[in-house]
Amino acid sequence: MTDKGNSVLILRETISTVVEPDPITKKIFLSLPEPGLTDNRADIDRLRQELGRIIGPVEIDLDLMNRVSGVLKESGWRATATVAICNRGWSLISLEKGDTSGRNFGLAIDIGTTTLVAYLVGMNTGDVIDVEACYNGQVAFGDDILTRIFRAQDPEGGALLQGAVIDSLNGLIRILSERNSLIAGVDISAVSIGANTTMVHLLLGLYTGNICVAPYIPVVNDPGIIIADQLGLKVLKKAPVYIFPSVGSYLGGDIVAGVLASGMHKRDELALLVDIGTNGEIVMGNAHWLVACAGAAGPALEGGVAASGMRAEQGAISEIQIEQHTGKVQYHTIGGREPMGICGSGLVDGIAEMFLAGLIDRSGRFREGRDYLVVVPSRQSGTGKDIVISQQDISNLMRTKGAVNAALELLLESVGCGLNDLERFYAAGAFGHHLDFESAVTLGLYPDLPRERMVKIGNSSGEGARLALMSRKCIEEARHIAANITYFELNANQEFMNKFVSSKFIPHTNMDFYPSVKKRLRERGHLVD
Amino acid sequence: MTDKGNSVLILRETISTVVEPDPITKKIFLSLPEPGLTDNRADIDRLRQELGRIIGPVEIDLDLMNRVSGVLKESGWRATATVAICNRGWSLISLEKGDTSGRNFGLAIDIGTTTLVAYLVGMNTGDVIDVEACYNGQVAFGDDILTRIFRAQDPEGGALLQGAVIDSLNGLIRILSERNSLIAGVDISAVSIGANTTMVHLLLGLYTGNICVAPYIPVVNDPGIIIADQLGLKVLKKAPVYIFPSVGSYLGGDIVAGVLASGMHKRDELALLVDIGTNGEIVMGNAHWLVACAGAAGPALEGGVAASGMRAEQGAISEIQIEQHTGKVQYHTIGGREPMGICGSGLVDGIAEMFLAGLIDRSGRFREGRDYLVVVPSRQSGTGKDIVISQQDISNLMRTKGAVNAALELLLESVGCGLNDLERFYAAGAFGHHLDFESAVTLGLYPDLPRERMVKIGNSSGEGARLALMSRKCIEEARHIAANITYFELNANQEFMNKFVSSKFIPHTNMDFYPSVKKRLRERGHLVD
Repeated sequence: MTDKGNSVLILRETISTVVEPDPITKKIFLSLPEPGLTDNRADIDRLRQELGRIIGPVEIDLDLMNRVSGVLKESGWRATATVAICNRGWSLISLEKGDTSGRNFGLAIDIGTTTLVAYLVGMNTGDVIDVEACYNGQVAFGDDILTRIFRAQDPEGGALLQGAVIDSLNGLIRILSERNSLIAGVDISAVSIGANTTMVHLLLGLYTGNICVAPYIPVVNDPGIIIADQLGLKVLKKAPVYIFPSVGSYLGGDIVAGVLASGMHKRDELALLVDIGTNGEIVMGNAHWLVACAGAAGPALEGGVAASGMRAEQGAISEIQIEQHTGKVQYHTIGGREPMGICGSGLVDGIAEMFLAGLIDRSGRFREGRDYLVVVPSRQSGTGKDIVISQQDISNLMRTKGAVNAALELLLESVGCGLNDLERFYAAGAFGHHLDFESAVTLGLYPDLPRERMVKIGNSSGEGARLALMSRKCIEEARHIAANITYFELNANQEFMNKFVSSKFIPHTNMDFYPSVKKRLRERGHLVD
Repeated sequence: MTDKGNSVLILRETISTVVEPDPITKKIFLSLPEPGLTDNRADIDRLRQELGRIIGPVEIDLDLMNRVSGVLKESGWRATATVAICNRGWSLISLEKGDTSGRNFGLAIDIGTTTLVAYLVGMNTGDVIDVEACYNGQVAFGDDILTRIFRAQDPEGGALLQGAVIDSLNGLIRILSERNSLIAGVDISAVSIGANTTMVHLLLGLYTGNICVAPYIPVVNDPGIIIADQLGLKVLKKAPVYIFPSVGSYLGGDIVAGVLASGMHKRDELALLVDIGTNGEIVMGNAHWLVACAGAAGPALEGGVAASGMRAEQGAISEIQIEQHTGKVQYHTIGGREPMGICGSGLVDGIAEMFLAGLIDRSGRFREGRDYLVVVPSRQSGTGKDIVISQQDISNLMRTKGAVNAALELLLESVGCGLNDLERFYAAGAFGHHLDFESAVTLGLYPDLPRERMVKIGNSSGEGARLALMSRKCIEEARHIAANITYFELNANQEFMNKFVSSKFIPHTNMDFYPSVKKRLRERGHLVD
């Protein structure tokens, strides 16, 4: 689905890291000597020896041998081999007549709890050729992860959920293939997936029942490379499907992919990566160490939860301004459509503006006894109802903000650093991309750093997946990242609870941590020293 | 079928080479730390890390992950992992509750065109525990290889022939499992197979149509390790099935396995290995070089071809003596049964005795105008008919002998050696085992070497298969042997044809090559200088 359709938005902008291309599948055109009495090597050995000369040892599965032998003869010994890196070396995954080495494509996929995004990547160049997104078909079985885990307790439920996400992915593959005149079963030779731990388990048909109960043990954190046909993905049957390794039940491969895409694991500067979505994840560190924590971001930012909440689709209010003196509310909708509701970034924008306009106090409560703000009156809205921000919406967001604050402070304390030591801040994910930095800082959701240190990196999970397609070194780096992140479990952490409870002020209990907000409040007369 | 049944004989005696045990499947009992909040590694990663510590990196397939996770929990984290060496390293192939490390078995299999022999091997010790043999079920589709290749031209025929040999193997597996109280699908964790190139192709379902037409190109010479389940073998589903590499269409993995078992590829002495069966193969060489040739041994030794021919079964005449002066014929039957016919070794014995007794001349023709010898008259035979050796039987054997002679001389000339340079002679295979050295030398089928240099090595293909089960180093050696044998194609070789035509005398055109035969003839008065 594209921006023109009435469905999920696609984040086209991502950071683009340059890597030395060393793709996980390669197409190699071969012109082999014809066999004769003086060169009577077997067909497979002839092919394997030539590939070995070019790329090193290559395995050839029994079930390809007859076909390979036939293609060699039919093509007059001029054929294109597709080889894929498996966990331990190269394997032949296809042999086509003639020279098809120019047609080699991969899919970099971000599997979110709500949304799936697939980037079509040219394996020879690393370029993103096209992108498509859709809802995760599992949404039909429950919006939230816990409902899905419960549904997948029995094997039948597990198979249903697995089938749902595979069907969604196959839908994306079909659309991308048709739009780019690809033969999916032939031209798409590699897949790479960034996803949270539960999504990976449901995708692979693994038992999720232990992910959500102490001591939170997944079946697997590092599944490595799976063969596409084992999953029913409609690409080349033997295409490798690389799954990013997770750190644990609550810190998934999507975040590892994000760290990889940010490059923070390779630099000396102290960096913070924040990805707020259905869950919120924070990673802090540099080339020498990485710490992280994660937790449910709370319902504040979920499309369907706020009083007038909706997903970031066409007609969603994504930006809100409130005039200082008149209190007049202005807004912007996605696609410039008739307003239908407010998405997450609009909500943060609106509440920040309400705070700066003095409509709510530092504890997030309305000053004048009312309990909602009308953003769009019913007569102007596309739904025929008032579009509002309610006291409850604000309270929910305060909890999310409090959790992020508490987690960040916990991480900083654990490594003996302060907010000002952060040399780089990465806002990851779709929400991070749409969110206005100023509003996020005003509410204390993001730290108040010099703005030049703050970078939006878009769909860093998808970008990490693209990097994995293009570089075995990146796959090694991802494994290294996952193995070396020190994870702080928040669920059982009393200090986190204390910090969470005490971080109930906008932007923070200690205003000195937020100098730019302090300045702005002072300018507007809401703060008098 | 055992010696007691009325079916094929099992060759129990083989040379037994001692190797440092490093079996291709190992069972490892693990007692893992239980997970907790301070050690929340995922189940699979926990297992993989422990195995990695003990044996190095181990891959775990997606389709085992759920089960592995379940077994770990149900067993209280005390379980036995079966790991198998695949082409590139260790893979987990099974996980069982508790300590089952003592129960680990493998099958070393010799697949002949006519007969299958399976040795049950203890993988922890390398001992042969039991052995069973049967006819190759493909015999129903044709006794000879060409008929089977023709039948397998279309995919349906190929599937029928593949199914036939797999069914036969599964029959052997069932018998061996029952007799030794094994659970085949659990306790048999590895299979190793020595077979000729056509048998390997039919077993693997590969196209055989190009094996028998110039330039004689197989689909594959070195298939490596196949997974048992891919073939439908009823052992542990993921058990590795190692297939010995072939040298070419007419020199198969059975011979490579034989060379491995003989050890001739590791010694400095010049050795000759001769394996005469449905085909005849000759390998000559030492640690520095190996040369070989092969060809159809001719119909002489095929059970059903000679006038009174039969397979080496119960009641077959396997030894014949003719008294020098009386001309009285004495014989021995397999199992001491009533005589039913003559098997290959009996035929060679009989013809050698006829020559020594002066009944036939050096060109293999009856001296006194008759055209057969009655070995057993009808009144004493189990068939009610005379059991005879005919002029045609002698002529057929002369062709076989001539082919072996010609091939041997060709190989010797190619490396600039003479018969006397041969420091070791290995008689391989079932026929080689039953054949009397003296008779074989008398006819010139074997070279006339000092007898202490001549060794019977029995079912060397089966013994090679056992070695492959027990040692990765042996698998490497087999690959090295196959890659380094210089193969002489006889089909298109004019020099071979010349030698073949000229080697029509018993024991040889040049009697000086056969001093022991010369001496014996002189003793009997058949040779006057």
